[in-house]
Amino acid sequence: MNKITPKTLKGFRDFLPKEARKRAYVIEKLKSVFESYGFEPLETPSLEYAEILTGKYGDEGDKLMYKFKDNGGRDVALRYDQTVPLARVVAEYGEKLPMPFKRYQIQNVWRAENTQRGRFREFLQCDIDTVGTANINADLEIIICVAKCLETLGFKQFKILTNDRKNLKDIPKEAIIIIDKLKKIGEEGVKKELSEKGFDSSILENIKISGKTPAIDLLVEKLEGKVIFEPTLARGLDYYTGLIFEVEINGYSAGSVAGGGRYDELVGMFADKQIPAVGASFGFDRLIEAMNELNLFPKDLQTTKVLILNLPNFEEKALEIANKLRENNINTEVYLDSNIEKGKQFNYSEKKGIPYTIVPNENETFTLGWKNENGQIEKVEKITFNNLLEHLRS
Amino acid sequence: MNKITPKTLKGFRDFLPKEARKRAYVIEKLKSVFESYGFEPLETPSLEYAEILTGKYGDEGDKLMYKFKDNGGRDVALRYDQTVPLARVVAEYGEKLPMPFKRYQIQNVWRAENTQRGRFREFLQCDIDTVGTANINADLEIIICVAKCLETLGFKQFKILTNDRKNLKDIPKEAIIIIDKLKKIGEEGVKKELSEKGFDSSILENIKISGKTPAIDLLVEKLEGKVIFEPTLARGLDYYTGLIFEVEINGYSAGSVAGGGRYDELVGMFADKQIPAVGASFGFDRLIEAMNELNLFPKDLQTTKVLILNLPNFEEKALEIANKLRENNINTEVYLDSNIEKGKQFNYSEKKGIPYTIVPNENETFTLGWKNENGQIEKVEKITFNNLLEHLRS
Repeated sequence: MNKITPKTLKGFRDFLPKEARKRAYVIEKLKSVFESYGFEPLETPSLEYAEILTGKYGDEGDKLMYKFKDNGGRDVALRYDQTVPLARVVAEYGEKLPMPFKRYQIQNVWRAENTQRGRFREFLQCDIDTVGTANINADLEIIICVAKCLETLGFKQFKILTNDRKNLKDIPKEAIIIIDKLKKIGEEGVKKELSEKGFDSSILENIKISGKTPAIDLLVEKLEGKVIFEPTLARGLDYYTGLIFEVEINGYSAGSVAGGGRYDELVGMFADKQIPAVGASFGFDRLIEAMNELNLFPKDLQTTKVLILNLPNFEEKALEIANKLRENNINTEVYLDSNIEKGKQFNYSEKKGIPYTIVPNENETFTLGWKNENGQIEKVEKITFNNLLEHLRS
Repeated sequence: MNKITPKTLKGFRDFLPKEARKRAYVIEKLKSVFESYGFEPLETPSLEYAEILTGKYGDEGDKLMYKFKDNGGRDVALRYDQTVPLARVVAEYGEKLPMPFKRYQIQNVWRAENTQRGRFREFLQCDIDTVGTANINADLEIIICVAKCLETLGFKQFKILTNDRKNLKDIPKEAIIIIDKLKKIGEEGVKKELSEKGFDSSILENIKISGKTPAIDLLVEKLEGKVIFEPTLARGLDYYTGLIFEVEINGYSAGSVAGGGRYDELVGMFADKQIPAVGASFGFDRLIEAMNELNLFPKDLQTTKVLILNLPNFEEKALEIANKLRENNINTEVYLDSNIEKGKQFNYSEKKGIPYTIVPNENETFTLGWKNENGQIEKVEKITFNNLLEHLRS
């Protein structure tokens, strides 16, 4: 058989262990904060009937959606966001769900975007939403929970830009999309594009004098110094109807790391009545990138803590000590092949980034080696199992 | 706009919070055992070039694969298992990876199967594999790790059926597929089908007298009473070349919950040389089903521990106590709307399955209510914050 060239599709990524561990770390932190506020996990299928998804995200969304016919000839589409599937779930299960329904969802979505820095065709979204209440407390809780997530990840300075879609209600959709580019192309750019498309460029000035809503006033009060009223904030997606927001990290300029808002008319597209909802979504890749840039990942994300070298005549001893360490919740690998020379086993440990190496000795003792903060190798010889445990736990 | 009927595709599933929590519990347990043996996380894309996946799983696999043309006209396919993408990764990254490369992977796969009980079109696989060594220790470690996973999930009695593909090396592929049905259709059935397809039905008798390999002998020794040499075990997938195994749970008859084996020629299809490998895969849905049947899930999987009722004039107090509980790592929800009557707030708590309810009182005290083991409501009145903490932690 001919060799098949190993390659991945543009916009799709492998995550090798080092990167995968960072992702798992962020997911774990987000989940813990989501759950601390009473949001519960939901999963929906990757594939939906195409008609469930199309027409909800605007023309751009329909164009970027992965749509195809399955083996049974059905028109199907890959998940494009997690909000529309949530709306479908709420309509489908109705009375079975507690109302309000507070859920979090952490799954991949697929968009056939032009790939560029930080833009991928498969990427993870992390969402929280509260469906079934128009109470302002739901809006506040969503944004407070988002802020708490960012603090838990280690971000100290960020700002939450807020606006209300109602402030834009008299402005045509096409003009909103232009105004949404304000950050990218500046005020002059927006005015120019508005004129070119036949809009009165004074729209922008009129928006600027629109007023804060009670929700925004409350937010400003609750999250002192973090919330900014930004009357030109528009957000791209079609379905928002009330409060909208975006979160920017100081010192990270690639774009907002989270955003969301109130959408009181989306669930009704699948149900016999309107059901109000509000939610937020984290841009997972940007979070990771911002954390890398600001150096917020802990240094000890390595999952394997110890490698025990496998030396002739010490195989059984290596397995025994490994099991004892595992019983003490210390992730321990035994090198698999005692025919491989010691130096190569050390190289393996180094390449894998395993912090501690154990060399079995005679008489139930071991040599423990590790690199100190300056990158120098330190070791303790003739250590007993209990000393070993103490060292590894310190 | 017309209402869109909310529905999901056949073979695809929503996981509402109760089910999603069980899944998260099993994943967490498996991850912790995988990591304790030095397996590290890997993620690969959902979509691959179709040519990467086709021709690796036999004709049946090619037929069941979700293949389509993407927006750029490329032939793409959804992940069908996690072994072929792993082989692609090893060939693609080569020297960048530590060798042997020990990874775990927990992602969805898609197969357009006829749906029936326990058969889905989107399902989760949980795999461990060791690539880059033919050492028998790798085979043993994989199977020992699988056994450890099952014990950690609470399974007490299970058996590991083992065989070696080399015992079947003189038997045509088509006959192996028939022999693989032994459990389903019985010995007479297999012999009949062999004859019908023109094979000598004595093949089956000949297989039965084949011998154990050294790896199987060692396994029998290491996992006393759990490992059974089963010379007729065949396993469906094309790529196995050596030791193969399947795990069955006593008292759960729907089929094996895990399986795997050695495949020394798959990675070579993408690389310039042969790279030996061995691995195992858990059937996640069957694990969940077996755990349900054997009652192995803990009773307290609920993520939200406390609901604080939201009563007029006590809103601020509710939020304050919630924050203090969260600081103490107790997941706490505040009911969002103080206009909703108390009884309905209780109903919400019940429907969501939240174990504790707190009603704020005057004078910095609270009433704590919960259901005891007999389903009766118990409560303590005029409790202080510190008493509250004690109660919730006990």
